[in-house]
Amino acid sequence: MSSPASAPDWARTPVVLAPMAGGPSTVALAAAVAEAGGFPFLAGAYLTPERLRADVEGLRSRTSTAFGVNVFAPSPDEPAMLAAAESYAALLAPWAAAAGVQLGAPRYDDDAFAAKVDLLAELAPAVVSFAFGWPPARAVDRLQRAGVQVWVTVNEPAEAEWARELGVDGLVAQGWEAGGHRGGPVDTGAEQLPVRELVRALREQTSLPVIAAGGLMTGSEAAELLTLGACAAAFGTAFLSCPEAGTADVHRHALAHRQGTVVTRAFTGRSARALHNAWTDGYGSRAPAAYPHVHHVTAPLRAHGKALGEADLVHLWAGTGHGRTRGLPAGDLCRTLLGELAEAARRAGT
Amino acid sequence: MSSPASAPDWARTPVVLAPMAGGPSTVALAAAVAEAGGFPFLAGAYLTPERLRADVEGLRSRTSTAFGVNVFAPSPDEPAMLAAAESYAALLAPWAAAAGVQLGAPRYDDDAFAAKVDLLAELAPAVVSFAFGWPPARAVDRLQRAGVQVWVTVNEPAEAEWARELGVDGLVAQGWEAGGHRGGPVDTGAEQLPVRELVRALREQTSLPVIAAGGLMTGSEAAELLTLGACAAAFGTAFLSCPEAGTADVHRHALAHRQGTVVTRAFTGRSARALHNAWTDGYGSRAPAAYPHVHHVTAPLRAHGKALGEADLVHLWAGTGHGRTRGLPAGDLCRTLLGELAEAARRAGT
Repeated sequence: MSSPASAPDWARTPVVLAPMAGGPSTVALAAAVAEAGGFPFLAGAYLTPERLRADVEGLRSRTSTAFGVNVFAPSPDEPAMLAAAESYAALLAPWAAAAGVQLGAPRYDDDAFAAKVDLLAELAPAVVSFAFGWPPARAVDRLQRAGVQVWVTVNEPAEAEWARELGVDGLVAQGWEAGGHRGGPVDTGAEQLPVRELVRALREQTSLPVIAAGGLMTGSEAAELLTLGACAAAFGTAFLSCPEAGTADVHRHALAHRQGTVVTRAFTGRSARALHNAWTDGYGSRAPAAYPHVHHVTAPLRAHGKALGEADLVHLWAGTGHGRTRGLPAGDLCRTLLGELAEAARRAGT
Repeated sequence: MSSPASAPDWARTPVVLAPMAGGPSTVALAAAVAEAGGFPFLAGAYLTPERLRADVEGLRSRTSTAFGVNVFAPSPDEPAMLAAAESYAALLAPWAAAAGVQLGAPRYDDDAFAAKVDLLAELAPAVVSFAFGWPPARAVDRLQRAGVQVWVTVNEPAEAEWARELGVDGLVAQGWEAGGHRGGPVDTGAEQLPVRELVRALREQTSLPVIAAGGLMTGSEAAELLTLGACAAAFGTAFLSCPEAGTADVHRHALAHRQGTVVTRAFTGRSARALHNAWTDGYGSRAPAAYPHVHHVTAPLRAHGKALGEADLVHLWAGTGHGRTRGLPAGDLCRTLLGELAEAARRAGT
């Protein structure tokens, strides 16, 4: 077992690099943010435990500062999800066939959850954050005993109470503006609070530390969230266009040139914010709540779209601020955000 | 013809009282805001021209400061809307019958548009703003020749170009957070930009002055929008609970005690943000884009709900910030907002 990293010091690293699973999060991106004074998360979802180990060890070899790892906790496998995903697959089949792609079979899996908890208890990053389902109490205990802080993602103020009962160390408050998957424990499908309202509501309910996320692109926006009571602000989409990110070219181009995002289950069976395209326009309203079943159905079509640069076949995750991407290298962007935040705080006299 | 009011001086009155048609907007509310140094809008929609005249003259008798009047410009009467509204009425009928209410007949009307333009050209308030459809160019000309500034409501950045071609004097940028009807010229049904992103996008496209609206509850939020380039910030939901507002009791109670808003066509056939209730949950996904046809269908049921205090039978318009209502009289609230705005601007050094 590695010696656990020291706990994060949010006052020193109020800028957080959000985890972006499925490609964009890389060791190089996290390292650049860490070296520039930010707090990076690696994305553990969709990776094998072996690959996640390599990422954590790779980041450790490049920086001595604290970082976090995000994992998707398993969602319930409702019996109706399989049938719903099969119906959705039948709906998509002609479209996939026109692209020359065979869709995947709908199936459940837990993304190697137990093995990842084992691994992270061993490697002991400063923080492990969970999205989607809630981690079982024994996973929380185990990580905490290994010196790891456990954070969970919330989308609704009421979820703070569940988090308190679970005994977690902090909350990632993901506002409605956020790009990518809704990370809270229940995929309601309904619109949820903007990040400023969510942070305010959480502050009234809990003393747990809160990282604010959702649509943030500047340090002055981060400063505003800190004024509302967050301890740090997370940026995802802001870093998607950095050269160190593993963002697909088709995705980079779309972030700069397309307009309009939508929260949709079209790609994975779980609500996520993406730039709208022919896929979301044509099928979004008929996509069921069936994660990860739908994720496995559509994966080959999305991989094909990425490879060929067909934007209509790709999940173009994007937060509402995507039009303000700055095109800086990650270290420069992180330093810029920290500088803006400090300047805004200075002006506000805080 | 009255002598036209002087043009608004946004630097002196950066706090705007948004128009809230259907009850909440009252002469008393507008007068209190005007006397406290804000710029109030009266809501001209749903009123007869005679009643609108009485409101304008009533406000003039209580204040000598500038104010605006908002009017709904007619939307197109698509032939399919009638049938869609009839289908929706059939869906609602058992529910209405259970409440002992007969639904209205679906029909088109233009809310006495021509007569209201005549009236406002005569009375010449400082500003006439339009929501929903675009006013015809001759109406714009006529009002401007009478010394009236003409503003239009936009929800999409691209609408700025149409507004420029129409020759209007300013834009009300209504962000996604806003309560009540989406005011832009096209009811896309899709999610639209948060107010901060919308103001930024408009600032890149046009030099027209912009009033920012959507979810704002404090002067420091207004200051942020002014920093982004707005000339003023409009508050609607923030004033809904003021004693001077005509807000129904059931609506006041819901604003303070319910959580969760949704943009829905359930009540009127036009997208509007409301607190979710049994009506939006049960019928929102099946409500057609058919305004004002659906408005006329549901009006008796909503009136019944208001009269009996049945929250599930009422359109509980609310912006995303409704949980932060302050419960102050309107003049105190307006002065508080102006003070917060000035203080935030002072701290920001602007």
